Amino acid sequence: MSFSAADHGYMARAIRLAEQGLTTATPNPRVGCVLVRAGEVVGEGWHERAGEPHAEVHALRAAGERARGATAYVSLEPCSHHGRTPPCANSLIDAGVARVVAAMTDPNPQVAGRGIQLLTLAGVRAEVGLLEAEARELNVGFVSRMTRGRPWLRLKTAATLDGKTALENGESKWLTGPAARQDVQRWRARACAVLTGSGTVLADDPQMNVRLPGASRQPLRVIVDSRLATPPDARILAGGRVLVACAAAEPDRRAVLEAAGAEVVCLPAAGGRVDLAALMAELGRRGVNELHGEAGATLNGALLEAGLVDEWLAYFAPLVLGHHARGLFDLPALTDMAGRRGFALRDAGLVGGDLRLVLRPTST
Amino acid sequence: MSFSAADHGYMARAIRLAEQGLTTATPNPRVGCVLVRAGEVVGEGWHERAGEPHAEVHALRAAGERARGATAYVSLEPCSHHGRTPPCANSLIDAGVARVVAAMTDPNPQVAGRGIQLLTLAGVRAEVGLLEAEARELNVGFVSRMTRGRPWLRLKTAATLDGKTALENGESKWLTGPAARQDVQRWRARACAVLTGSGTVLADDPQMNVRLPGASRQPLRVIVDSRLATPPDARILAGGRVLVACAAAEPDRRAVLEAAGAEVVCLPAAGGRVDLAALMAELGRRGVNELHGEAGATLNGALLEAGLVDEWLAYFAPLVLGHHARGLFDLPALTDMAGRRGFALRDAGLVGGDLRLVLRPTST
Repeated sequence: MSFSAADHGYMARAIRLAEQGLTTATPNPRVGCVLVRAGEVVGEGWHERAGEPHAEVHALRAAGERARGATAYVSLEPCSHHGRTPPCANSLIDAGVARVVAAMTDPNPQVAGRGIQLLTLAGVRAEVGLLEAEARELNVGFVSRMTRGRPWLRLKTAATLDGKTALENGESKWLTGPAARQDVQRWRARACAVLTGSGTVLADDPQMNVRLPGASRQPLRVIVDSRLATPPDARILAGGRVLVACAAAEPDRRAVLEAAGAEVVCLPAAGGRVDLAALMAELGRRGVNELHGEAGATLNGALLEAGLVDEWLAYFAPLVLGHHARGLFDLPALTDMAGRRGFALRDAGLVGGDLRLVLRPTST
Repeated sequence: MSFSAADHGYMARAIRLAEQGLTTATPNPRVGCVLVRAGEVVGEGWHERAGEPHAEVHALRAAGERARGATAYVSLEPCSHHGRTPPCANSLIDAGVARVVAAMTDPNPQVAGRGIQLLTLAGVRAEVGLLEAEARELNVGFVSRMTRGRPWLRLKTAATLDGKTALENGESKWLTGPAARQDVQRWRARACAVLTGSGTVLADDPQMNVRLPGASRQPLRVIVDSRLATPPDARILAGGRVLVACAAAEPDRRAVLEAAGAEVVCLPAAGGRVDLAALMAELGRRGVNELHGEAGATLNGALLEAGLVDEWLAYFAPLVLGHHARGLFDLPALTDMAGRRGFALRDAGLVGGDLRLVLRPTST
């Protein structure tokens, strides 16, 4: 299978369309579709939000009769199942589309390839794999949930260049500048859920919401709170869905938090801690694709230690606070350099006066 | 005074020539000279090492009779004093040079402008200030010594992204990769002296020398060693000049170190520590322009606390070691964010798989 330069261009356009659903498509994947006939774009679409039409439907509606004999470029294999909308594979067949190019198959191993199979059986030429890496990256969270049953955890930190996140007394406002804090808002906005710990809630009383003009969706807020220490008047409990994961029954505190609007789940692990892997599975079941973590050294360390951090979004302010200040990751002491946690640098740049790195753990 | 595009081009060339003396000119400044007559370069030169001819002399020798009526572009004001070589201002006058463009005046406030004055009095058109910022940067150490009486201290660190330099047990080999370690060699090579602490000597037994092919000069090695704890068989004592700065008389240990070839100076401050400001002044008197520091958190913190760090050359390996590991800077605990140390980022880039930042302290 080989793709032409024109194929590449149209698929890149389909992926750019898919990006329009970055903050809204959840729990669905972000998908874009471009319909092209005789070198002319006759229809385009992207999936905006669950329950609304898929990208292909938008594109087919725009194209009308001109879809007949066209090529459909889709950033994800067209669906083959009846969900809240009819299967897109059938819609493409019914509209007389001659060729379908998909960037990637459905990442759910139980359905992958069925849409392509439907198309092929109906005589539509169906090809997969054009700009696949880009398409997978765009839906890194959806792929994670489908293949691993848990969200893609992107852990955000803000520290000084000596790795400090707060003074010994807990003061942490503000290490990074306004541009970095605004940038964090955009990362939160694309996440299905935001994860923090009760330590951060108690110390900083953050809202952990999206404060961007025109934000149409607030991520679920998730608090790791072993002993249900979150006060009922915490700002994070106001104005949106909150899930509190605890490790102890504590019926009184639970009732208080539930009365304040939070949902409480009990996921105990050894040592009175929350079972973080179980929490990830729970969030996966709840349709969380991308999980955005912002926590203190204890939870950061526990997540890293549990191998649950998929991406590290690390902001560094050009400051030094010294060794008394609080650090980034509480981890068991190492006696051998072989125990170090390694990362691959994916991106580096300046955001205002701060440095921003995007890293992913390496297997070593 | 205004300079033409051609003037800029020739001065840039003079500065590039000056850079040829980067690792050898010490304690003199790095200086380059380009002689141009009727749009033709008739002579070039740069100062290689103390006691050898200055840049202007090399350029005049190359030009011969063609120096008459030429313009001389020099990255530093020509000297006006009889040192180991005759004054360059006189040489330029005697050769019949018609115009002299200097990037900057001599930074020594007691002599600045005398070379220009000599030239002007002799009827030579003399101008100053073309590409001055670049020229000052090239001789940042010489400028520091002339104007502040102390070296330019460039502190090198190598840490993980959580600001850790070694495991709790002291193991630190290797955090950064071979490209970063090779890069450090180049920074050491340009320094007049390398500074470390006895803690690092005892923990790592480093050579702290320049191991580059063709290196023709070893920087002076300076050890901050309050109680003369450096063992006489330490590798740093072998093969080159070593200055040990102590804070206690300890005649026996002193004799042992002197027998091992080191020079010992006693510069006590309160608390049994070495007076670091006094050490800087001592190194200034000894002609150290650029001082390259590589130490542990104690000395790093003390230097930062004393306001003696002029530049921070910070390597970061994409690793995490966790909070038990050793940090970058031991500093007094802060109770207020106003006490944070701020830096301006001058440069950021990748060296192999590691991040390299160059920062300078801000006044805040």
